[in-house]
Amino acid sequence: MIAANWETIRNRKLAEQRSQLRQEWLIPESQLPSDNVSDVTDIPKTCGILSSRELKITDSYDARGLAEAIRAKIYTAVEVTAAFCKRAAIANQLTSCLTECLFDSAVARAAFLDAHLDRTGQTLGPLHGLPISVKDTFDIEGIDSSVGISALAFHPAQDNAPIIDTLLAAGAVIHCKTNVPQSMLALDSVNNIFGRVLNPRNRRRWTAGGSSGGEAVLVAMKGSVMGVGTDVGGSIRIPAFVNGVVGFKPGKGRISDKGLTTGQLPAAGKVGLESCVGPIACTIEDLGLFMEVVEHGRMWEVDPEVKAEEGWWTRSPDPALPLRTKVQEEKPLRIGILPSNGVTSPLPPVTSSLHRLTGLLQTHKDIQTIPLDPHTTAFSQCQSLSNKFFSAEGGAHLLSLIHSTSEPLIPWLSTRLRPKTPATLTHFRALLAQKSALSTRLLRSIWVDHDIDLLICPVAPHPVPPPDAWNAVGYTSAFVLLDWPAGVAQVGRVRREDLQAEMEGKEVKGGWDRVNRGLWDERFREGYVGSWMAVQVVAPPGRERRCWEGMKLLERVVAGGERARL
Amino acid sequence: MIAANWETIRNRKLAEQRSQLRQEWLIPESQLPSDNVSDVTDIPKTCGILSSRELKITDSYDARGLAEAIRAKIYTAVEVTAAFCKRAAIANQLTSCLTECLFDSAVARAAFLDAHLDRTGQTLGPLHGLPISVKDTFDIEGIDSSVGISALAFHPAQDNAPIIDTLLAAGAVIHCKTNVPQSMLALDSVNNIFGRVLNPRNRRRWTAGGSSGGEAVLVAMKGSVMGVGTDVGGSIRIPAFVNGVVGFKPGKGRISDKGLTTGQLPAAGKVGLESCVGPIACTIEDLGLFMEVVEHGRMWEVDPEVKAEEGWWTRSPDPALPLRTKVQEEKPLRIGILPSNGVTSPLPPVTSSLHRLTGLLQTHKDIQTIPLDPHTTAFSQCQSLSNKFFSAEGGAHLLSLIHSTSEPLIPWLSTRLRPKTPATLTHFRALLAQKSALSTRLLRSIWVDHDIDLLICPVAPHPVPPPDAWNAVGYTSAFVLLDWPAGVAQVGRVRREDLQAEMEGKEVKGGWDRVNRGLWDERFREGYVGSWMAVQVVAPPGRERRCWEGMKLLERVVAGGERARL
Repeated sequence: MIAANWETIRNRKLAEQRSQLRQEWLIPESQLPSDNVSDVTDIPKTCGILSSRELKITDSYDARGLAEAIRAKIYTAVEVTAAFCKRAAIANQLTSCLTECLFDSAVARAAFLDAHLDRTGQTLGPLHGLPISVKDTFDIEGIDSSVGISALAFHPAQDNAPIIDTLLAAGAVIHCKTNVPQSMLALDSVNNIFGRVLNPRNRRRWTAGGSSGGEAVLVAMKGSVMGVGTDVGGSIRIPAFVNGVVGFKPGKGRISDKGLTTGQLPAAGKVGLESCVGPIACTIEDLGLFMEVVEHGRMWEVDPEVKAEEGWWTRSPDPALPLRTKVQEEKPLRIGILPSNGVTSPLPPVTSSLHRLTGLLQTHKDIQTIPLDPHTTAFSQCQSLSNKFFSAEGGAHLLSLIHSTSEPLIPWLSTRLRPKTPATLTHFRALLAQKSALSTRLLRSIWVDHDIDLLICPVAPHPVPPPDAWNAVGYTSAFVLLDWPAGVAQVGRVRREDLQAEMEGKEVKGGWDRVNRGLWDERFREGYVGSWMAVQVVAPPGRERRCWEGMKLLERVVAGGERARL
Repeated sequence: MIAANWETIRNRKLAEQRSQLRQEWLIPESQLPSDNVSDVTDIPKTCGILSSRELKITDSYDARGLAEAIRAKIYTAVEVTAAFCKRAAIANQLTSCLTECLFDSAVARAAFLDAHLDRTGQTLGPLHGLPISVKDTFDIEGIDSSVGISALAFHPAQDNAPIIDTLLAAGAVIHCKTNVPQSMLALDSVNNIFGRVLNPRNRRRWTAGGSSGGEAVLVAMKGSVMGVGTDVGGSIRIPAFVNGVVGFKPGKGRISDKGLTTGQLPAAGKVGLESCVGPIACTIEDLGLFMEVVEHGRMWEVDPEVKAEEGWWTRSPDPALPLRTKVQEEKPLRIGILPSNGVTSPLPPVTSSLHRLTGLLQTHKDIQTIPLDPHTTAFSQCQSLSNKFFSAEGGAHLLSLIHSTSEPLIPWLSTRLRPKTPATLTHFRALLAQKSALSTRLLRSIWVDHDIDLLICPVAPHPVPPPDAWNAVGYTSAFVLLDWPAGVAQVGRVRREDLQAEMEGKEVKGGWDRVNRGLWDERFREGYVGSWMAVQVVAPPGRERRCWEGMKLLERVVAGGERARL
């Protein structure tokens, strides 16, 4: 049998997607905003497709609040699902954020949930009736996981991924899958089937990020209550940052990563870096609800690599005493501030927003901030070691899969994804030894020597850049290499006054730094004004709950300023 | 510089060992029993070197009881230490169980502990004043970790392993290191420096096991309160079994495996199977005390690969609800019985003792036993996959290290340890994928489908064999491959009536099975009478505490028979 050509597959796949959409949920082609319209975030409200009740459903609740409203029968699951399906369909027209539209099955599922609630008086769980989206990589029985590769289309998954079963057991309605870069190995979510995911706040000038780009955009557009992504280099945290939402990357083994289609051979991540599954949501509170659901999913019963047990998340607030040896009551919370990864100097808006945040934290007497140096702590060694892991496997299988339908690489990957000779096992062992030594050193140099509880650092060395201009993932990939939990929390917007500072006069550190300084060119600078600014909140290995509590604390500080009650 | 010849090194090393021994703690050469004397377990009592008080100290207490006696000042730490040093020195003369004799520093440490207790009224911790031995592999600052390889002698360690620091922080006195096979890759503990460890109950006919052979023998001879071993194929469990003591192999990441010298390159275990650190002791209660000390050692502060936190062990009795989904109060404990690994059929004494044990368990109404099949559960696939991991790295570095001093391989290894071309990374990835699939399948087929709480199976397909005749490690290595906690508990001795049954009439399954049937030859059979018989108690991944509770339960059943109170 001759494999179909990628264009044939793409056309079939797009036709399938069209067939999954109800015409009345779509903005007529003639009324769609032109490509020149940058900010499309208001269109769901203005296009007239959603009723005011549906706008209230999709705009006015966090996940817990909406679940409570369904439980209290203020809304039915069916109307909630229809509202989010409509909004997701609209979002997709504006940003190409979807792959599989499971709207019909979602409404049927919602009807089942309503009937269950009517009959038993009970909800299935804390997500009862909530439409949740998942990145295209997660297998759902009978549905494609094509991850932007035409060769994978029309090969529906045989089974649900454990995280899908967990969400369903908690009462979720899975109403769509979201768009990704071809192979998920890029930081802009663009592929030859579903096109390019656009940032709804500024479709022309700001990247939508990747590889969970469709997910973050859909959540930002309120087309989903929350969503599930994966992160190996920053693929949850980067799109959360650039779309003004929040995301959480737990450590390895907290959420099952079984049942993920990636286009790579089984266990490829184990001879590279393994991706982590985590949530993307509008609020930090919702990230916590997701983790609660994860715990109740008991994934350790189906995945031997899940290292968690009852209570691992919910035994609040922090299941263990602080890492530091000398535990003192009433001791202020000590937050380390890491201003740079030591490889790429952050551009002025990144530095000034971190300064503002640090200043704000310092106004609270219960918080101490401790400056950290990426060189003396050895943090600066993480990026190059991560990159060595990324390239160890060689990529031959993935490339031949992509090319098997004559599909070209997307432009960004075409200069980066080249077949390499796989590393030898001897070389790979040496990388593992380096990783072990570096992780051990950083555990001490950052957490123990500085006696800190949490770490805050930039998500990237630049503000939200234009499409295809994301420069390096060193700030985010480090915490996958180290297996430290890390979340992204919003801290404000780039201000016009942040544009004044210059990078000149500081030493250029190397190639990444040079490219990064290019992003401070006058051509780009103006585009940063008003873009999202976020930071990473990081905790020691195994301290997911503390990481999340830290994100909540930061949210209160940012929202309340100097007067915030902590 | 030309490397010294191995014989020169051996002679220097043995001279060093002699210099570490006090003459008055040794049986005069003239009075040593001849090699024909099989059972030497009574000699510490009869040789006149230990006073009756010292015999009481070494014979009459478990670890907790002895620590309490020191705390209550019934004994000083110095006299306890001296008593165990004497007994260790005697044991070494009879069985070659020691490598480094740290008696002088041990007595000095004990004096410090006594002074501390006098001055403060406080002990350092639950091991205050207890002499603890460690397998030669554990690094102690300033002391060799030669692991039976002459090239590693006279290269003292730079730092303490984290487990050493943990033991010291709990008040332990480390009085000696114990003997191992050359490279620790054999199941008899014999090397060209310190010779062959002998089984003190029957020096001629029963192996002392390995690779933690010296450790188990020393504990069996009461030359140490308890000891620390490592286990990758069964190296804690096998010597514990054959020497009539008990041992515990936790899952990966529960006890730091940093600071271990193995003769292999750093992270070699990560491209094979990683060894687990665990205790060997006289009583199951003492294994639990060791794990308590481990938790208090907070090793997650120094080793990022330790996946544990405060309370992980001590949050008793089982930190999580049973694995099974439907938790029911008052439900009987369900114990799976796996009679064979499906590759090598157990010899009649193994089968009959398991039958007796099963029958005994069935007399208790709170226990149900569930027979498991190694083929339908896929357990039979573990052995060959484990073996593929063992050989992936190739062994070139280890072999060239051994040969760098012109040292020959020990006979058992000379036909087995040959340099192989390392696996390719592609092949290794495929092995990891197989391991992941098999582990996932067995989690379901054994624990979930059979709805069991614990698993009991043989330690080996044969009783205690003669030296160098251990046949395959499939029964033990499986639980390192699967990363399930497993302990060894004694269940009685081989009885003369167990010799009557024959293996004839059952199909020979392959090479391992054929060799195993050879161990049922008339030449060997008589030698099994009176030898130790033990089983493995196994729990699901992450359930170390449940595994240990299961061992205690089994101990009560075996000790109390049908009338045991559970």
